[in-house]
Amino acid sequence: MEHGGNIYKAAEQYGINIDAIIDYSDNVNPLGVPYSAKQEIIKNIDALSHYPDPEYRELRMAISEYTGVDYKNIIVGNGATELISLFIKVLKPRKALVVMPAYSEYERELVINGAMVDHYVLKREVNYKGDINELCSMVQGKDIIVVCNPDNPTGTAFTVQEINKLAKVAMEYGAFLMVDETYVEFTDDISLFSSSSIINKYSNLFIIRGFSKYFGIPGLRIGYGLTSNLNLIENINDKKDPWSVNLLADMAARAVLRDEDYIRRSRDFMYTERRFMAAELKKIGNLKVYDSVCNFFLCEILSNISAREITENAIKKGMLIRDASTFKYLNNRQFRVCIKLRNENQMLLNFLKSVL
Amino acid sequence: MEHGGNIYKAAEQYGINIDAIIDYSDNVNPLGVPYSAKQEIIKNIDALSHYPDPEYRELRMAISEYTGVDYKNIIVGNGATELISLFIKVLKPRKALVVMPAYSEYERELVINGAMVDHYVLKREVNYKGDINELCSMVQGKDIIVVCNPDNPTGTAFTVQEINKLAKVAMEYGAFLMVDETYVEFTDDISLFSSSSIINKYSNLFIIRGFSKYFGIPGLRIGYGLTSNLNLIENINDKKDPWSVNLLADMAARAVLRDEDYIRRSRDFMYTERRFMAAELKKIGNLKVYDSVCNFFLCEILSNISAREITENAIKKGMLIRDASTFKYLNNRQFRVCIKLRNENQMLLNFLKSVL
Repeated sequence: MEHGGNIYKAAEQYGINIDAIIDYSDNVNPLGVPYSAKQEIIKNIDALSHYPDPEYRELRMAISEYTGVDYKNIIVGNGATELISLFIKVLKPRKALVVMPAYSEYERELVINGAMVDHYVLKREVNYKGDINELCSMVQGKDIIVVCNPDNPTGTAFTVQEINKLAKVAMEYGAFLMVDETYVEFTDDISLFSSSSIINKYSNLFIIRGFSKYFGIPGLRIGYGLTSNLNLIENINDKKDPWSVNLLADMAARAVLRDEDYIRRSRDFMYTERRFMAAELKKIGNLKVYDSVCNFFLCEILSNISAREITENAIKKGMLIRDASTFKYLNNRQFRVCIKLRNENQMLLNFLKSVL
Repeated sequence: MEHGGNIYKAAEQYGINIDAIIDYSDNVNPLGVPYSAKQEIIKNIDALSHYPDPEYRELRMAISEYTGVDYKNIIVGNGATELISLFIKVLKPRKALVVMPAYSEYERELVINGAMVDHYVLKREVNYKGDINELCSMVQGKDIIVVCNPDNPTGTAFTVQEINKLAKVAMEYGAFLMVDETYVEFTDDISLFSSSSIINKYSNLFIIRGFSKYFGIPGLRIGYGLTSNLNLIENINDKKDPWSVNLLADMAARAVLRDEDYIRRSRDFMYTERRFMAAELKKIGNLKVYDSVCNFFLCEILSNISAREITENAIKKGMLIRDASTFKYLNNRQFRVCIKLRNENQMLLNFLKSVL
């Protein structure tokens, strides 16, 4: 298993202390671990001597409040990854359609479980904005459609109206639709992009959400799924390890979902900083920056330098950037950077200006 | 999924506050969460903004020091449960032999993955002490042998010499041997019962260990596997979710493995308290207590009262006891209790004396 942005590997490879690296590849909320999460963990640390509640009742109640989705339509897992994996295992789809470029884990899981994978490819010519009608026209004959929305690594997204259309077509053809909304909370208005409001209309819809990115706690390994399909939830639970979410993650997650201050600050910060970064990146000569609705930007070098050269150059300066050429359908001039704190963003901009 | 000793369910069912329940069913070290674990978590709480090292290098080094097993022969997982599950998924055994009575998870995982499961049953007439020759005679034709050693719920164990014999026979017949050593550290002398010293002799041997029980941190979800079979480790890693062990668990585990004080206190405590409890339980009329090498006792009521009556009676007094009749091959007069702190043990003894 090889993932981008492996800070540990980079630290080892280049002999740099991990704390000396600024990670522009991890897509994690730069506001850091919410104070509420730390407080909750420290306060309840003796609870580690208990097993977590295998039904995660209180956590699911908190997710219900946060998303507006009914308690019974929520399932929690050890990071979004466990849920993606279990969902695919339960479904055992023979034919899958994945919107690309995307996180490699979907295809890996699908292939492990014996699926033939077809791609709907977002096009560079239209700045990777998807055409929902074209996508819908490829649904027939598929058992599952996988969409990362907003899309990693392009930063584009379908609206909820577009996903609604896709879910409907998928329903007609008996296909499931998995929407990974890991990055949806970084957008200016969740209600424009999240499909959580339409789950009751489509029993074939399974939405994945995580805590790692938006709530800045990738170390805790926790994610959740939303679906009105109770059979699906039951089948996933049957295959799930009991207590796959650890107790500290359980407690911290409950705390952050109710941390209105963190949520408000994150939204305000992202609103401002995305605009700042988009504008500043666009000012850099020899660089094309693709529009993004979330917390990272796909960039493309227009001169004769490869993304690999840039990323190797960057790591020597303690900056970890994601070489995007390892994503299928992207080219060797493309890299991805995420939004960090202002001074870190400024450092990145200065670096890019100096090398491009 | 239904497990014994579900304190959350009991609390809900009987309308008791969870903190008011003493859990004699959880088999967790009563010395509680090690101070070193808490300290480590609190000290490093900001590290939650990082992903764990997907190779868990430092953790595996610490396990290597602790077990004496080479670093490369160690794999970590989200609790022993994840490793049991992945091991069976990788092996896809058609025919399995499980030493019974045992934790129901082995059989569940085997059946999910399409195995036919045969049992070697520990016999009540000989106080559930296994006969290794008899067990060895059942190996032929099997793809996997599963032994919980020491055995939960009987508290008996095979010696390393006996496991060595079994591993050898299994090797000859091309069968894998999985030994779940969750409770081995509670015994007086690990080296008598653990098979970690013989893994280099048998590439078919896979040992499972956990942190939940002995180190008192079930809330953290972390376990490890030991095997000299590097192919097996690679195949499990291929199927494993990246970062399935959360960062706090990673850090806490490293700390407790080096917590010599906790380990020494636990050993001393268990040595004394097991003898105390065995002696006191034996004094109770109408009760048979089976010899145990670890931290719990299988008990059998000799009068006309069922284990269910006893456990229901106990929970009303805030004491959670495991009705063992839900274990295959045990009867409705049997229950299991684990060793807690002295005053709690005394409470249990008083309760049992009053009802039996």
